[in-house]
Amino acid sequence: MTVTAPQGFRASGVTAGLKPSGKPDVALVVNDGPSDVAAAVFTTNRCKANPVLWSEQVMRSRRARAVVLNSGGANCYTGPQGFQTTHASAELVADKLTIGAGEVVVCSTGLIGEQLESDKLSAGIAAAAEWLSADGGPAAAEAIMTTDTRSKQAVRSGEGWTLGGMAKGAGMLAPALATMLVVLTTDAAVDADTADRALREACRLTFDRLDSDGCMSTNDTVLLMCSGASGVTPDEATFTELVRDLCHDLAQQLLGDAEGADHDITIEVVNAASEQDALDVGRAIARSNLFKCAVFGKDPNWGRILASAGTTNAEFEPGELDVAFNGVWVCRGGEPGEPREKVDLTGRAVSVTVDLKAGGESATIWTNDLTNAYVHENSAYST
Amino acid sequence: MTVTAPQGFRASGVTAGLKPSGKPDVALVVNDGPSDVAAAVFTTNRCKANPVLWSEQVMRSRRARAVVLNSGGANCYTGPQGFQTTHASAELVADKLTIGAGEVVVCSTGLIGEQLESDKLSAGIAAAAEWLSADGGPAAAEAIMTTDTRSKQAVRSGEGWTLGGMAKGAGMLAPALATMLVVLTTDAAVDADTADRALREACRLTFDRLDSDGCMSTNDTVLLMCSGASGVTPDEATFTELVRDLCHDLAQQLLGDAEGADHDITIEVVNAASEQDALDVGRAIARSNLFKCAVFGKDPNWGRILASAGTTNAEFEPGELDVAFNGVWVCRGGEPGEPREKVDLTGRAVSVTVDLKAGGESATIWTNDLTNAYVHENSAYST
Repeated sequence: MTVTAPQGFRASGVTAGLKPSGKPDVALVVNDGPSDVAAAVFTTNRCKANPVLWSEQVMRSRRARAVVLNSGGANCYTGPQGFQTTHASAELVADKLTIGAGEVVVCSTGLIGEQLESDKLSAGIAAAAEWLSADGGPAAAEAIMTTDTRSKQAVRSGEGWTLGGMAKGAGMLAPALATMLVVLTTDAAVDADTADRALREACRLTFDRLDSDGCMSTNDTVLLMCSGASGVTPDEATFTELVRDLCHDLAQQLLGDAEGADHDITIEVVNAASEQDALDVGRAIARSNLFKCAVFGKDPNWGRILASAGTTNAEFEPGELDVAFNGVWVCRGGEPGEPREKVDLTGRAVSVTVDLKAGGESATIWTNDLTNAYVHENSAYST
Repeated sequence: MTVTAPQGFRASGVTAGLKPSGKPDVALVVNDGPSDVAAAVFTTNRCKANPVLWSEQVMRSRRARAVVLNSGGANCYTGPQGFQTTHASAELVADKLTIGAGEVVVCSTGLIGEQLESDKLSAGIAAAAEWLSADGGPAAAEAIMTTDTRSKQAVRSGEGWTLGGMAKGAGMLAPALATMLVVLTTDAAVDADTADRALREACRLTFDRLDSDGCMSTNDTVLLMCSGASGVTPDEATFTELVRDLCHDLAQQLLGDAEGADHDITIEVVNAASEQDALDVGRAIARSNLFKCAVFGKDPNWGRILASAGTTNAEFEPGELDVAFNGVWVCRGGEPGEPREKVDLTGRAVSVTVDLKAGGESATIWTNDLTNAYVHENSAYST
């Protein structure tokens, strides 16, 4: 039941006709309280979609009663008319729920640069309000899918409180958030500061370390709504850890469903002088098309890993680097190590370890391989 | 006759057997003087190949008498044994030509992480020295090819002096040089300072603005050798302009032969607050896999261009950006402009113009689309 697993939430997912496929495309999640504490993290892309511009304003109060989400159109680069559509959506939700428009977060996903059909959207929102229910979580999760092949949901239980979540995103997954909409709900009674800190820490270690194709979206939003309906206030460390754990689960579901990918690649950079150094090296590797093509070809091409590491300013000596594929150290001290024939890359999961021998810090980045299917899907998406 | 077009140069290209295909793989270019002035630019990758480590030392004197180049192996990440192979190559060339090893630049290209077969290389160098001739330029240009489908050569004539050049490179083309070996020769009588300034300026505006796949090589070398045999000393502006023009020609040949590419894309960023801003935006676009896939799909997806621009710190207002594909302004003021149906992307040449409306500076970046053929070629290259 995901976002409706915690007490105090209702949700729905309906078909408004925004998607040519006729699949569900409008979702609504409502927090019935008693608390309306919320926290959100948005894309750091400077070219933000209209719903992000709107929702950033809403979230200044750190309170939200509802979130309305649509697939079938990102409402991005659609100017004042597009902003008007977003605003009208929030007003309509507010009207149906007898709350204020300033309490309604709006999220959109789909093609950018085209106006949403506001009549269809309005009708969809009205229907979504009618269909709200305490077991509407799965329907909502389905309605936010775009090129996703399956809906992404997760639930975690604390002591006397629950955390639920749904996510969408299958391409444009990159740091500073993936193309991704995530709604988390909890019935824990937490204050706005705690919710904000927990969400930021969770994002930093999970969604921000997904780098599927290096492309940063314009619509990314991660929203956490807290109803307080359980009456339980967990200690902050416990709360933060459960939020992080649930975000990790959703992030891995996103990675596993990335557009056209054959392999899920975990890049662990160890013995770095700083966490930032480890991240820089991990990201440089995750963004190398040559490396990603090699993994698609089941080729443990460690030379392309060193060539990527060499583009960073991280502290290391090129002649000291070790690299392993799936635990086989094919590069030792910047030279050929164990025979590459010992590496088997036929499975979906690929692990790459890079030892910088420059300190005690480490970081993990998750990415995918670059495949013919990725090229196909992204050359045909808007046509 | 390219590198042997100017007076004072001999060259050759032979088959040493380093390439499984049995095609030519060792080239030698010799400057018979009277001058031995030279300038070079190397990859800025910190993980440099052995020939680059050697050649950087050679070029400290800003003089060179010969360059020996091999395809069939990059001699990169091959440790002390690999460096020994490079050193022995230079010694052998020096021995054959009765010059010093410190006057011999060495370049290698091919797969990284594997030792070169030094016996074959030595035999090849001996043969190349035998075959040196004043019309050996084309043979040399052919011997440095890897995945190139054709050799790249160009010649320019000054008043009483000549400039020739050859290049190889078809993948891993990225800023701070492409995977690319370039040898330029001239019989102009220029001093080392002039040669160095002219070469750096030319590289900055040509090779450094190629960004085929965002991957920076470990072996990139651009070498300019000046024999002074014409006895003519052109003024520096004229000399610099001709070097730039010839480098532009070679860069466009590299772009046109990029691995698996269907389209050559020129990204011009205009009305930027600074040249660096224009470059940052241009590079961000050139590195967006989603944009590159869209061009492959003949889709003028300007949303992906704005999304890329939004990841930079360049000065601009997102709501003011204009974007054109092949002269059709599909985005005006951050919103849909002329109908995308007016854009025809069936030809190989695609031009993208982004107007930042933030100043008077501009810059051009050249890239390619991302295709199934690119993925295929780079997933199969080493296997």
